Amino acid sequence: MMRIKEQIHPGDSASFSKTITESDVVLFAGVSGDFNPAHVDEESAKNGVFGQRVAHGMLSASFISAVLGTRFPGPGTIYLSQQLKFVKPVFIGDTITATVTAVEQISEKNRLKLHTIVTKQDSTVVIDGEAIVIPPRCNNPP
Amino acid sequence: MMRIKEQIHPGDSASFSKTITESDVVLFAGVSGDFNPAHVDEESAKNGVFGQRVAHGMLSASFISAVLGTRFPGPGTIYLSQQLKFVKPVFIGDTITATVTAVEQISEKNRLKLHTIVTKQDSTVVIDGEAIVIPPRCNNPP
Amino acid sequence: MMRIKEQIHPGDSASFSKTITESDVVLFAGVSGDFNPAHVDEESAKNGVFGQRVAHGMLSASFISAVLGTRFPGPGTIYLSQQLKFVKPVFIGDTITATVTAVEQISEKNRLKLHTIVTKQDSTVVIDGEAIVIPPRCNNPP
Amino acid sequence: MMRIKEQIHPGDSASFSKTITESDVVLFAGVSGDFNPAHVDEESAKNGVFGQRVAHGMLSASFISAVLGTRFPGPGTIYLSQQLKFVKPVFIGDTITATVTAVEQISEKNRLKLHTIVTKQDSTVVIDGEAIVIPPRCNNPP
Repeated sequence: MMRIKEQIHPGDSASFSKTITESDVVLFAGVSGDFNPAHVDEESAKNGVFGQRVAHGMLSASFISAVLGTRFPGPGTIYLSQQLKFVKPVFIGDTITATVTAVEQISEKNRLKLHTIVTKQDSTVVIDGEAIVIPPRCNNPP
Repeated sequence: MMRIKEQIHPGDSASFSKTITESDVVLFAGVSGDFNPAHVDEESAKNGVFGQRVAHGMLSASFISAVLGTRFPGPGTIYLSQQLKFVKPVFIGDTITATVTAVEQISEKNRLKLHTIVTKQDSTVVIDGEAIVIPPRCNNPP
Repeated sequence: MMRIKEQIHPGDSASFSKTITESDVVLFAGVSGDFNPAHVDEESAKNGVFGQRVAHGMLSASFISAVLGTRFPGPGTIYLSQQLKFVKPVFIGDTITATVTAVEQISEKNRLKLHTIVTKQDSTVVIDGEAIVIPPRCNNPP
Repeated sequence: MMRIKEQIHPGDSASFSKTITESDVVLFAGVSGDFNPAHVDEESAKNGVFGQRVAHGMLSASFISAVLGTRFPGPGTIYLSQQLKFVKPVFIGDTITATVTAVEQISEKNRLKLHTIVTKQDSTVVIDGEAIVIPPRCNNPP
């Protein structure tokens, strides 16, 4: 479930997939306070650029954090930074996959650079970006 | 409630504040799938580097999206990219404020660069970064 | 669990009690979009007139609806109107009780007037008001 | 984001819109305890007067509170009373808009009377009523 520095090599990767439901969007709005009509107002969204409600970009981005914190590198990882490019909209009903791939170890301060990408069921990229983390220091992090 | 390109000037700014409760962390874990023990396992967190559960960094980041999408520039804004530097941990009970400040209009493709910062009740910076958006094109976005 | 017109007499009454938790306030904000700092921002609320976050008035009012729709008159009741006077604030940790008491049958259109009151653990009145409903028409409403 | 007494004139107005989803009804039932079958039991509701589940009237009413507390008059407003006439049912999938309009300043005790109305996507009125509030006293309420 987690890997320390010595167990991580460029190209190592892990993913997490989830269907975006209306409930996810409603709950995300409720937690974040982001009641942008594009997310919560179907009537307004119908007349908007996408013709329907779109899921919050940060909701899709949060799946990157789910991979980093639970799968690879996993529990004990310290999240230093994240760059996000919102490339395409995600709609209710889309199934999206966040994939995290090790790019390189940065020896200074024990950092790890990862490519972070979120894709749709048809492989369209919806978010592209990069994360820097400190991987877990031992195999049994408290 | 929203501002188009011509109504935005460098230094213009808006904020959103919320106390981070245990419920927010629980709900965010449920929506994102990020069940990192650092967020949801008090026993493990007690022995970790922070001595207690920390809120998800992406939860705090989502308040930036709340400001961009509902206050400034507001509804109709298209979110292109976000850079996030997670500087300090946020704990349950902290009250955090996301502040978004216009930096400069990038004439190419009608883009706006904003400084995005999240601070705690004691003014500690918890997230620092930058967003690029396309501001709303008209005052009554559908 | 419900009473039809002929089974209701002035003075008949039912109640519902619940402790107001921080989770209730967080969820109510999330569903209603009411992120008034008085409800969700502990720092701002500390400096406000009540010195702490207050629960949404409509959250307390919703317990009146819970009594009307589930206990007295119960399922099948049609809710026509509600008058609410917000008398005192409700804080996180307060246990409140909504009590509904039949005042009189209004023969015109089969209506029933009820006194609706919400009180705290120390009997302080927090909401006072009146509801008009049409009681269930039969004992086994579909 | 908020207006004090001197900045409010009859006819001033603000709105908030949201699509009512099944999740909203489920969450509202969970927070309010209002498990009236009309709201949570699709089988029973199918045979009822509306042929389907209806959203809680108090859920729609809560959007009035969202406008008052976050948009107009905004943070710092004290909610004194609310009158609600439930005119038409709201169904899952409806997009509703709460609109608050200043009617008159009541000089005694600094009160403000507002017309409060909730409408559907097709402009049908679902709730009609009136609120009395004390507007914020200063531009930077704590």
